[in-house]
Amino acid sequence: MQQKVISVLSFFVLSSLLPQGIGNQPNIVLLFADDLGYGDLSYYGHPTSNTTNLDTLASQGLVFSQFYTASPVCSPSRAAILTGRLQTRTGVWPGVFVPPNKGGLPHNETTIAEMLKPLGYKSAIVGKWHLGVGENGNFLPTNHGFDYYMGIPYSHDMCPCPICFYPNAGCLSGCDRAYSPCPIFENDKIVQQPADFTHMALKYSGAATSFIKSNAASKTPFFLYMAFQHTHKPQFSGQEFVNSSIRGPFGDSLSELDWQVGEIMEALHESGVSDDTFVFFTADNGPSLHMGPHGGNGGLLRCGKGTTWEGGQREAAIAWWPNMISPGRTASLAATVDLLPTIAKITGATKPNVSLDGYDMSPILFHSKPGLREAYFYYPKNPDPSKGLYAVRNQQYKAHYYQEGSHCQNTYPDIVCRSNYSERAVDPPELYNLLNDPSEVYPIDGTSDEYKSVMAELNKLKDEFEKGMVWGESQMHAGSSSSLNPCASPGCTPFPSCCKTPPTEKWRNDLWHHTTSSHIP
Amino acid sequence: MQQKVISVLSFFVLSSLLPQGIGNQPNIVLLFADDLGYGDLSYYGHPTSNTTNLDTLASQGLVFSQFYTASPVCSPSRAAILTGRLQTRTGVWPGVFVPPNKGGLPHNETTIAEMLKPLGYKSAIVGKWHLGVGENGNFLPTNHGFDYYMGIPYSHDMCPCPICFYPNAGCLSGCDRAYSPCPIFENDKIVQQPADFTHMALKYSGAATSFIKSNAASKTPFFLYMAFQHTHKPQFSGQEFVNSSIRGPFGDSLSELDWQVGEIMEALHESGVSDDTFVFFTADNGPSLHMGPHGGNGGLLRCGKGTTWEGGQREAAIAWWPNMISPGRTASLAATVDLLPTIAKITGATKPNVSLDGYDMSPILFHSKPGLREAYFYYPKNPDPSKGLYAVRNQQYKAHYYQEGSHCQNTYPDIVCRSNYSERAVDPPELYNLLNDPSEVYPIDGTSDEYKSVMAELNKLKDEFEKGMVWGESQMHAGSSSSLNPCASPGCTPFPSCCKTPPTEKWRNDLWHHTTSSHIP
Repeated sequence: MQQKVISVLSFFVLSSLLPQGIGNQPNIVLLFADDLGYGDLSYYGHPTSNTTNLDTLASQGLVFSQFYTASPVCSPSRAAILTGRLQTRTGVWPGVFVPPNKGGLPHNETTIAEMLKPLGYKSAIVGKWHLGVGENGNFLPTNHGFDYYMGIPYSHDMCPCPICFYPNAGCLSGCDRAYSPCPIFENDKIVQQPADFTHMALKYSGAATSFIKSNAASKTPFFLYMAFQHTHKPQFSGQEFVNSSIRGPFGDSLSELDWQVGEIMEALHESGVSDDTFVFFTADNGPSLHMGPHGGNGGLLRCGKGTTWEGGQREAAIAWWPNMISPGRTASLAATVDLLPTIAKITGATKPNVSLDGYDMSPILFHSKPGLREAYFYYPKNPDPSKGLYAVRNQQYKAHYYQEGSHCQNTYPDIVCRSNYSERAVDPPELYNLLNDPSEVYPIDGTSDEYKSVMAELNKLKDEFEKGMVWGESQMHAGSSSSLNPCASPGCTPFPSCCKTPPTEKWRNDLWHHTTSSHIP
Repeated sequence: MQQKVISVLSFFVLSSLLPQGIGNQPNIVLLFADDLGYGDLSYYGHPTSNTTNLDTLASQGLVFSQFYTASPVCSPSRAAILTGRLQTRTGVWPGVFVPPNKGGLPHNETTIAEMLKPLGYKSAIVGKWHLGVGENGNFLPTNHGFDYYMGIPYSHDMCPCPICFYPNAGCLSGCDRAYSPCPIFENDKIVQQPADFTHMALKYSGAATSFIKSNAASKTPFFLYMAFQHTHKPQFSGQEFVNSSIRGPFGDSLSELDWQVGEIMEALHESGVSDDTFVFFTADNGPSLHMGPHGGNGGLLRCGKGTTWEGGQREAAIAWWPNMISPGRTASLAATVDLLPTIAKITGATKPNVSLDGYDMSPILFHSKPGLREAYFYYPKNPDPSKGLYAVRNQQYKAHYYQEGSHCQNTYPDIVCRSNYSERAVDPPELYNLLNDPSEVYPIDGTSDEYKSVMAELNKLKDEFEKGMVWGESQMHAGSSSSLNPCASPGCTPFPSCCKTPPTEKWRNDLWHHTTSSHIP
């Protein structure tokens, strides 16, 4: 009974927080960048990036400085943001999916899209899925609660992509030619193969804005998951963004991402739904330091992608909702796994009845209060049940139990970041105070009382957490078959290089930006 | 004749740019922080700094991302900002002044204060002078064109300063006990010795705001040079700022600096002169990395104070002038030595008839155009005519000819930053592209055509610059005498530790904030 009273009270408190219109069901727009470092946006201190739309979003929104992704690499990070559960639970480990994988995000997992469906939401994902394709595309987004999908279902360096910049410039980084040419899916059908990178951002923005406009017109609440291919390698951009940045190809790619953000925000404003939309921007993991000057930058954080140093997992993050979220900054701890519980709270959706790893961020977002999260648990790119956590943070303290360099040139000054810095146990663990040493360069003296008392607490926290972790069966170990390489022309030879959309199928290259597709729910 | 026509035209162009009031002579407020890293402000990406007033200044002003100080250490940097001339010309080399030094900024140098005097400006410096005291205080600011001075005339670790935090917390970093206790001067008189650090920010702000208000009231144009003791070691703060930051003592010190900025900005607004005031914020050099977690942070820039890596000399910088300077960001190259020519331009002052190292920044500030500066020349903390420049930047390229670690713990991960990384020639020079590699971690291949053609140009530029450099006689070599240690009670024993203001002289501890001193011109 008491619980019921609290629920009713919560409903009124919640209702009083929510804006009018669309039956108190705000739209959700999740903007998710790829391999973007903490230091890559001008708002986070990059000197030569050009990100005016993200700067505007940041100046009007709440800017997080201690926001974490669930993994330092792509697929597990994406599984976590959509399910609110760590990759070790969902089975999206170790590493990332490649096109011929048989596995994918298990169907018994509940995505944000599935959680919102009973409330009448329409959901779309535009861009990079990277949670499996599988036989007959059974792991594609349309089989995970999304009403619409357009995009390449994995990283665009996992398919030959020879032309990255207008008009015909080759890519700066090698693509894996063992797989089929990059496909663009619309729902479960390949509509372009090989993908045309020089018009991709335009296509993606067109799909996203059409989705926004059509739902706004029909007063249907919606969830848009905009999973940019930018700024992952190989960087690419359309004609308008070639040399648009003084930062080179990475900067051009980032500027095009920023333009896409601007297109989406404009669509929200033009459709009259901006006041009813919760927008959240962040990225899947830290910068690819092995790309050198063509890669991202972790700012003041140590190392980058693939590591459990802060540079691998702490990200720029911006929450935006006019009249609901006050502009400003927060140093509250929060994480991508907190988005599902937060979205459940603000929409009134029922959370999936499983072990969730996230906390509702409402206190931070709507009340300028500290968040509920006090700890964070770092699994490496390749989690291993016999090793468990690589690092644990509790409040200001972070202990490293294992370390491993990754995705970094072997001439990089900081040797612990380098790809050739192999995995090793750190015994005794290294302890850092991230509030006064965010760069993790001044370990706390292992003989100090502070070290001893803090480590006792962190060790206990680690043990408890690991005891409670139920590892999902590894989807990466489900095997693979080259026949699963997505192919627009099944049965062609030599497979998979022959996979192409027929030349007669004219791609609507320049239409997306100006029309509303009838395919979009 | 042609020149005259251009001058007249320039006058009209300039006049049309300037706001009404105070005879088109805008006030100048120069906010100069101490040992603050590029990455220390929240606006430049620090996760746990609390700098709301500086954030506001930044959001309303023009934020520089490639702004340089003249030196990676204090005195030479301060000589340069006030004279528009590199330290090698003014003789403020090598290193920095200590209290017993006989030398100081030569009197034949023209400071901004002296340049503005013929126009009727009143000038004040509040805070750290660090350009010499000398016999009978002959190098103090009041002998360099300033009508008013209040502050410690050097770094506050150059004098015993046992109490740094309210109520009686010892300092985190050692102070040099060979010198006399920290003195606070008012003009050429010591008014407090030892200085009370727990009320210092209040005193400084009081002096600064009183100066603003009294000049605004008398409609006198003014130049305020606010040279914060913050955030140099040992960090300190008053009662209100102890534990005000989650970043620890450095954060508390920075928050107090930020509060001082707020006080000054409020005084400008309250006095009705904010529209007529050009405000510029920057810092003297990069962070003291030897302070570990209690020091500053260079953000994504390499190394810190004392080095010619970017972390030593590139600084946060914000230009603010309502209706004159459009809010935004600029990646234009600019430097502290550009301030004197810029201030000459906007006030109509006559520039001193000497070799200046700066450029008028008007195109950047008022026309959103690229600046005139294309190159920057890096002298080390201890310049040596036999070695010359340590590094040269031209447009995007920077070549290192010498390198030296400094002011950095010897366990710091990046060995080239460490204090024990001794000075060495870099032959062949290392070349970086700072636009796509601001962190200077990806040297350009020395065998590439790019390297060869760029280095040919940089070598030529370096030779030409060094040929044109006329080295001023070293003021640091002018000798020293322990009798020059500033003393409030001359003749006392044991000198200099006996130097104290008499207990009968009651210091106006809490008056500054609320009253206008009659001493202030």
